Amino acid sequence: MRGKFIVLEGGEGAGKSSALSWLRTELSHDEFVFTREPGGTPNAEEIRNTIIAHREDDLDPLTQLLLFEAARREHVLRTIMPSLALGKHVISDRFSAATYAYQVIAAERPELKEFFDLIDANVCDGCAPDHTLFLDIDPEIGIRRKEGSGDRLNVFDEKDIAFHNRVRVGMNEYFKGRSYTAIDASQDQQTVREHIKRIILSVVHGTQP
Amino acid sequence: MRGKFIVLEGGEGAGKSSALSWLRTELSHDEFVFTREPGGTPNAEEIRNTIIAHREDDLDPLTQLLLFEAARREHVLRTIMPSLALGKHVISDRFSAATYAYQVIAAERPELKEFFDLIDANVCDGCAPDHTLFLDIDPEIGIRRKEGSGDRLNVFDEKDIAFHNRVRVGMNEYFKGRSYTAIDASQDQQTVREHIKRIILSVVHGTQP
Repeated sequence: MRGKFIVLEGGEGAGKSSALSWLRTELSHDEFVFTREPGGTPNAEEIRNTIIAHREDDLDPLTQLLLFEAARREHVLRTIMPSLALGKHVISDRFSAATYAYQVIAAERPELKEFFDLIDANVCDGCAPDHTLFLDIDPEIGIRRKEGSGDRLNVFDEKDIAFHNRVRVGMNEYFKGRSYTAIDASQDQQTVREHIKRIILSVVHGTQP
Repeated sequence: MRGKFIVLEGGEGAGKSSALSWLRTELSHDEFVFTREPGGTPNAEEIRNTIIAHREDDLDPLTQLLLFEAARREHVLRTIMPSLALGKHVISDRFSAATYAYQVIAAERPELKEFFDLIDANVCDGCAPDHTLFLDIDPEIGIRRKEGSGDRLNVFDEKDIAFHNRVRVGMNEYFKGRSYTAIDASQDQQTVREHIKRIILSVVHGTQP
């Protein structure tokens, strides 16, 4: 039986990465494949490095969009679809929602909406998440958390609060009409983690959504 | 006055690179900017490395298309358009025609035609070559030349003759209705070079096409 495809999304400092580290210790690696975007294949990880690097010549939002979709294409073909076909469940740190929220809405390029839809549909070729968990947090709180964490900041972390507020708006817009659960990520860490795990297991066992 | 944008295209072994090396010594660097695709900016050169690298996981043609267009976006924004605006003439080793010929036609993905048109139009945003020089050669002759040259072969050089024949068909299809000159690249090297130089100067002086 085909596995389930579950995505975790969230703004900066929502605790997505630490929740994923915890889930890796909680869920069986015989049943679950953990992966991330951009990345998840050697070529896609190389594209990731180009995207998040700090260089003199900042990437145009359209360039970013094309690079994210290029990495996604490899990820879908080489990692996600083969794993699902083997009956494994795939948990991905980010997927299409992030491209829409960051490169279209937060980058203030609404003219790219249809363009994104068309490219993403071709790239994913029917491979859509069965469910997405959205770790939602007020960007003011998220950024403060991230700054306090000692994690290295990437090119997106360093954007201003208005940018991160637009990311949040974009995420909510993207999820409208799709199968997702928003989780209040300002709650204590363990509550959030247990909630995520509960949802994942219910999706896998077909009791949700 | 805005400079002219001139592109050189050609199949493997058509002598494009050596003709460009010669042109660099013939044409004034005050007037002409020499650049290449994929490449022409630090980010685009990094994307180039991802595209031409030999890895275990071959890139899907759609991934290649997206990467070429991502590199082109940076090239157009950071190098080509600013140079033209300064009144410099830009000579590029390859541009959009190659993406169409290699990733759509030679890769046998005709369903990507409209997709390519839309992405390329958004990426170039009106920045089209004033003229293209197409160094045309029978792939049988071109590949034999290239193999004899001692040049390192890349991932595209190693494709079979049928692939290179399709590239040639794709190039001819792309140029239909556009401003270009096909040059018989099986002629002796100096004849071809002088022909290229003559056309470039006539485009720059507005006497051609």
